[in-house]
Formats: sequence, structure tokens, C-alpha cells
Amino acid sequence: MATKATFYHAGCPVCADAETAFAKALDPNVFDVEIVHLGEDKARLGEAEAAGVKSVPAFVIDGRAYHINFGADLAALK
Amino acid sequence: MATKATFYHAGCPVCADAETAFAKALDPNVFDVEIVHLGEDKARLGEAEAAGVKSVPAFVIDGRAYHINFGADLAALK
Repeated sequence: MATKATFYHAGCPVCADAETAFAKALDPNVFDVEIVHLGEDKARLGEAEAAGVKSVPAFVIDGRAYHINFGADLAALK
Repeated sequence: MATKATFYHAGCPVCADAETAFAKALDPNVFDVEIVHLGEDKARLGEAEAAGVKSVPAFVIDGRAYHINFGADLAALK
């Protein structure tokens, strides 16, 4: 069964670049990728923060946060 | 044709975790992944640095550096 991978972003250029490089290129047999725009879907900020996300773009995979470069602080999206 | 993706690491726990989460899970139809241990293969430090890698673990894809969380500064490996 595919592992759930959530990609959090905020529409920033760094986010868009990471999305192209990773979110759309993970093996679909391994990952079931969900893409969440935290600027538009602020209701999901809490879950991202709870998983350890400090900035976007970031993935949460198996409950662990993986920050890819730096686009924006989560605090800036509240 | 698959895009070349180089994963630079230094054997650190953060590196190993990122390797499991990403380097081994990229779509093999999209990426041809090479894994480079910069602690053991110091001759490759220069190419990593030239591509913009500041710390490990990091990927270089299409000449762009993507740092995943933070394991160690490149300077600490010289």
C-alpha cells in the first residue's frame, strides 16, 4: 500500500520549484501524494504545525517533517 | 529519459532518514538517482558546492540544490 505523503506549500516560487522537483516525481507505487496550499487552506495549518512543519515547502511522510529549502515561515501564513 | 538526481549525504542520522524517505522513493521512471557519501568521497565536494549545496542531506536535480532538513554543513566535511 502506498505511503501517504503530504506536501505543504504557500504558492511561493521556492514552493513551486520544490513541487515540480519532488511532489510530482515521487514514485506513485510508493507514495500517495496530497498537495496542500496553506495560504488558501488555513484550516490545515494546525496539522502541519503538529507534525513539526516550521516553514514551507515541506513534506510530512510517516509523521515526520522534511523541509525542502526555505520559502516562508509557517508563522507568516497565519 | 530519466533526469539525473544526485543525493549528497555524510552518513548522519538526518541524512539516512532523508535517504529512506526520498532517495529510495523517487519514481525510477523520472529520476536516475546517484547517492554520494561526501564524508568518504571528498573529491566530489567541489561539484556539490558548485551546484549550490551548503549542507547535507541535499539533492541536486537539473543543476539546482534542494536541502532537506539539516544534517551537517558542507564546511564540516572538508
